[in-house]
Amino acid sequence: MKPTSFPPLKNDQFLRAARGLPVQRVPIWLMRQAGRYLPEFRRLRQAYDFFTVCRTPELAAEVTLQPLERFDLDAAIIFSDILVVPQALGMEVQMRKGHGPHFPDPLRSPEDVARLKAGDVHEELSYVYEALTLTRHRLQGKVPLIGFSGAPWTLMVYMVEGGPSKTYARPRAWLYSHPEASHKLLNRLTEVIIPYLKRQIQAGAQALQLFDSWAGLLGPEAFQTFAWPYLQRIAREIKRDYPEVPLILFARGAHHALPLYRTSDYDVIGLDWTMDPRQSRQAIGPHKSLQGNLDPAVLYASPARIREEVQRMLEAFGPHRYIANLGHGMYPDHDPEHVRVLVDTMHQASETLLQTSSTTASS
Amino acid sequence: MKPTSFPPLKNDQFLRAARGLPVQRVPIWLMRQAGRYLPEFRRLRQAYDFFTVCRTPELAAEVTLQPLERFDLDAAIIFSDILVVPQALGMEVQMRKGHGPHFPDPLRSPEDVARLKAGDVHEELSYVYEALTLTRHRLQGKVPLIGFSGAPWTLMVYMVEGGPSKTYARPRAWLYSHPEASHKLLNRLTEVIIPYLKRQIQAGAQALQLFDSWAGLLGPEAFQTFAWPYLQRIAREIKRDYPEVPLILFARGAHHALPLYRTSDYDVIGLDWTMDPRQSRQAIGPHKSLQGNLDPAVLYASPARIREEVQRMLEAFGPHRYIANLGHGMYPDHDPEHVRVLVDTMHQASETLLQTSSTTASS
Repeated sequence: MKPTSFPPLKNDQFLRAARGLPVQRVPIWLMRQAGRYLPEFRRLRQAYDFFTVCRTPELAAEVTLQPLERFDLDAAIIFSDILVVPQALGMEVQMRKGHGPHFPDPLRSPEDVARLKAGDVHEELSYVYEALTLTRHRLQGKVPLIGFSGAPWTLMVYMVEGGPSKTYARPRAWLYSHPEASHKLLNRLTEVIIPYLKRQIQAGAQALQLFDSWAGLLGPEAFQTFAWPYLQRIAREIKRDYPEVPLILFARGAHHALPLYRTSDYDVIGLDWTMDPRQSRQAIGPHKSLQGNLDPAVLYASPARIREEVQRMLEAFGPHRYIANLGHGMYPDHDPEHVRVLVDTMHQASETLLQTSSTTASS
Repeated sequence: MKPTSFPPLKNDQFLRAARGLPVQRVPIWLMRQAGRYLPEFRRLRQAYDFFTVCRTPELAAEVTLQPLERFDLDAAIIFSDILVVPQALGMEVQMRKGHGPHFPDPLRSPEDVARLKAGDVHEELSYVYEALTLTRHRLQGKVPLIGFSGAPWTLMVYMVEGGPSKTYARPRAWLYSHPEASHKLLNRLTEVIIPYLKRQIQAGAQALQLFDSWAGLLGPEAFQTFAWPYLQRIAREIKRDYPEVPLILFARGAHHALPLYRTSDYDVIGLDWTMDPRQSRQAIGPHKSLQGNLDPAVLYASPARIREEVQRMLEAFGPHRYIANLGHGMYPDHDPEHVRVLVDTMHQASETLLQTSSTTASS
């Protein structure tokens, strides 16, 4: 399939909210909306391992579309993993059941940075672009398709730590002990991420999200030194070529960073569930859209309780410049029926709210 | 030994800073200052398991004093564990090497709360009081002795989750699915913690720290509903009987909670390393002392780099109403010689700063 003559977009509510345009209802999508909580995903995963699904465009497209067939979601996000970038740089990554990713041979000393492949590594990632193009066609314009990448600091955390940890002390130790090697590594990642994201757009991605999942390991100074400059550079370079493609930043745990975002090139700021919606809006200002931030644990509660929490979240964010989402990803033991309650409640409640406010405004 | 005729206190810098009185130098102590990074601790642990050390006053006293013999620290903190409270309530806790605490039989449903022992459980905790009394005598007035407890929410997290987790979703799910059982459990813990802390004072503790290590799992509303009311009640009831004993609160990750602390009964607010010192001071106001917040990973860096970071931290907090500490506990692979650099640099730099500012003030 070619990345041309894509079917026209039917539901543009997500893109409108990302650009700050009026919407008819608050759009909603969910981080990890394609995943293990869906029985159809688990069935497919019995036959194929995790990275085989990522590397096989047919399978990646199928899995990406699964939640869209069940729920009235307003965006699709390509099924892939942030660790395909370290893989493309020559690192081995294993997915261990129940333990998450494991690097058998992580970066243990500054010299190890030289082990990473030099030059253009985008041949290695062509399966991501193919998956995006195929999925965009298969979507038939139903909703927009989101591409993504891990942020440089978060990829560095995995590459240096190598596996699950209680403290993730190793990558933080690098920042203080090997600041030059850290910047070298972060630079290399940034150099790969920028063309990786541009090619995702060329392949069909209609919006992009940067996942800085481990931003919360950093204090404000370390964030401003080792995370933010690279995040800014990525946004600036993408926007120079693709000013119309919305960019979303989800820097989980970086509660101190909101004022930095005001003047950044990101259009949408994702918030984790520890962030107060009203205070976040105040700190970020009126010119960005906000995305988030329901505690995923709310989905374990009864439908009635979920509705209450959704209503409360909608009131706190307001229906404008807002994209509903969780404050982190779906958990494997979530009940799909509770996802339906979340999605439908957000749509119904926001439609009512928007109708009421437009009636009030015109009366 | 009896909790009477304790030797007079020689170094009161920690207590003075906690009370907002002028100091000659910034006092410093370190969370987990007695622990596995010390070879003498590891030697003792070869002969005794973790909870045997906690339960044997002679051993607990020995371990508590170990870091004081090496470093010029300004406070001792009794060697114990926050999980002795769930143990006293009848729950089994195992300490698994490299994995942390494990509850073979955690609270899995609201009905399980009824399994907890009713009534006064303080016979079970007498070894803590004995360890405090013995240690206070052994300290010979060198520095003050800190007692502590886990906060109700943090104890609930361990009791409900039962072991290490990537998400700690179970205790959060309780808050939304079983709010009444959650409050019942948090109430029971609070009822135990208040007399537990009072008896620690009677036994010789000269200051108390509440560890709400898992506060960061909660959003602002959940924190204000399920953590803060219990923390307030604990502080109020301790202060009613012991207004002169400084109370420290370390609610790790509760970045949104600073304004709540302004009017609380806590004297000292502990900050994790994601908190900006100047902004924290502004949010908390001038009437509390601050404690923290060096990233423990800084201790992996060179002595020169450690000195730089300590100097920067001192300048950011200023020398008044400030107790230097880490932003979390020591890690097992820290180098004790780097701890010495941290402690001595903070003392020297703050003495210089205080002399300069008093000279400036009088000139």
